[in-house]
Amino acid sequence: MKAVFFDQNLTVIDLPKPNFIGDESVVRLIQAGICNTDLEIIKGYFQFKGVLGHEFVGRVEASKTSTLVGARVVGEINAACHECDACRIGWTRHCPHRSVLGILNRDGAFSEFLTLPEKNLHRVPDSVSDDEAVFVEPIAAACEILEQVNLELTENIAVLGDGKLGLLITMVLDQAMQSTSEKLTLIGKHPNKMKLLEHLGVQLINYHSLKPCSYFDLVVEATGSPKGLALALQLIKPRGTIVLKSTFHSQLAFDPASLVVDEITLVGSRCGRFEPALELLKQRRVDPTLLVQDTVPLNQALTAFDLAKQPEVLKVLLQP
Amino acid sequence: MKAVFFDQNLTVIDLPKPNFIGDESVVRLIQAGICNTDLEIIKGYFQFKGVLGHEFVGRVEASKTSTLVGARVVGEINAACHECDACRIGWTRHCPHRSVLGILNRDGAFSEFLTLPEKNLHRVPDSVSDDEAVFVEPIAAACEILEQVNLELTENIAVLGDGKLGLLITMVLDQAMQSTSEKLTLIGKHPNKMKLLEHLGVQLINYHSLKPCSYFDLVVEATGSPKGLALALQLIKPRGTIVLKSTFHSQLAFDPASLVVDEITLVGSRCGRFEPALELLKQRRVDPTLLVQDTVPLNQALTAFDLAKQPEVLKVLLQP
Repeated sequence: MKAVFFDQNLTVIDLPKPNFIGDESVVRLIQAGICNTDLEIIKGYFQFKGVLGHEFVGRVEASKTSTLVGARVVGEINAACHECDACRIGWTRHCPHRSVLGILNRDGAFSEFLTLPEKNLHRVPDSVSDDEAVFVEPIAAACEILEQVNLELTENIAVLGDGKLGLLITMVLDQAMQSTSEKLTLIGKHPNKMKLLEHLGVQLINYHSLKPCSYFDLVVEATGSPKGLALALQLIKPRGTIVLKSTFHSQLAFDPASLVVDEITLVGSRCGRFEPALELLKQRRVDPTLLVQDTVPLNQALTAFDLAKQPEVLKVLLQP
Repeated sequence: MKAVFFDQNLTVIDLPKPNFIGDESVVRLIQAGICNTDLEIIKGYFQFKGVLGHEFVGRVEASKTSTLVGARVVGEINAACHECDACRIGWTRHCPHRSVLGILNRDGAFSEFLTLPEKNLHRVPDSVSDDEAVFVEPIAAACEILEQVNLELTENIAVLGDGKLGLLITMVLDQAMQSTSEKLTLIGKHPNKMKLLEHLGVQLINYHSLKPCSYFDLVVEATGSPKGLALALQLIKPRGTIVLKSTFHSQLAFDPASLVVDEITLVGSRCGRFEPALELLKQRRVDPTLLVQDTVPLNQALTAFDLAKQPEVLKVLLQP
């Protein structure tokens, strides 16, 4: 089978089709999405070696649960031990023994077939299209913010970064905001990307016209840039919360006084539960498909990666 | 009057005695404590120019409220406008128009007389000695942690740093911990300082024998060193909380992935309310006096600062 393999270099290679073993189900890929984490991995982030990819929708090819075979599924990317202290309290995404699809000790989804533990798979409702379902993983990551921060205590919220994740986070927060006194602002530097969310009534501000303002109660930093945190610190009110979503392969420097003196809370945020993300799609409350830039055959993955690296480009999908 | 003045250099100079004006009461200094913030200011932190000092106990010399004259007082260091949005919700310590005693746009307490708004003054109960009262400000800063973090959700707590503030925080957390299942650990590198808290039953660990452990739910970073955060990140459990107390005059660098992947929360923490600190002293639940290293006449402040800079030295007090 064709697979997108990274080992210092990115190549499309032939690998043996994985076998169905124990709890691991085999999933035939329908399509997968290229995420910024993939782009960071090929720069050396996490020192990952193997098949890339962790955003996917597929169809179960083989599983110990026969009723699962043939089901269209998405998959939680953290494969946990289910025995340690973290797993026992339900924090499987933080299991210290976990492998992570296409990120840590586990081959990923940019491949004709992939495997994941049966527990990780979620059936996709018929009403949710493949182009929607492939976004469940990043939408879940956006929903994670709602489990970490109490939106009821915030009035002015900013999302910093108009990349793929920044736009999804904006859609999710816009849906979650209940009160009309709350205001959501997207701060980016790509007018064409921000324009995609114009219909939401979210305030759109160009990064270049921004001044330090100490205005927002909550800033979600999703720029993917080492400069993002310093900017977030200029925008946040005293005692405000900055959610840090960006992961990248470099050190982050900031003035500790800016955090201590203003008693800012900085919350690291990664993966989320898939259930709320599937529910948002099922109820048609978010439409991630407007982020799809292009769909490229899996065996042209190198071209797809080159495309995905362009600053103006949003989601590039891979199909076998 | 004699005053310890900083303007690029530290000097003891003669200044006119301040006048009693409007809401500002004049306080005759009994004694004041040298804090690490003072030591950072003379390195250039906050670009402060003026009379240093913000930890003090004194006696009201003049005030528009005649019953306050003669009272022994300590004083909240943030003098707020009481009119802005922050003040209106009671966040006077975050008033953007505030001056801060000996730190920002307001002469400090290392002086025979100082002034503070009457609202900032707290009477000291007779049962609290001058050597205890001079610690109200840093104990209040330690108590602030209790208003920011829910100790009930933590099991293993570490205080990182055995300096003056680290020891006070350890005392305050030790008092606040209710359940026997909670464990408090002080991590430092000065055995003579850590020994002072041996009687509390707190676990004492030497920094040099420490290994990355992801063991603690809560780490209070009070090292005053740029290396403290990186160490705290090695000690904290996934989804744990790091309270950042250190302010110093340099940038802090860390790997953002360590915060994002493990979904760590970082909480900046500064000044606290004086009431809980006075209550702890009144009830004799903490004894800060064991931190007093020496008491030096105000006009020998330069010698006192040289002493306070020594790594082995704890609190140095100044008396007119």
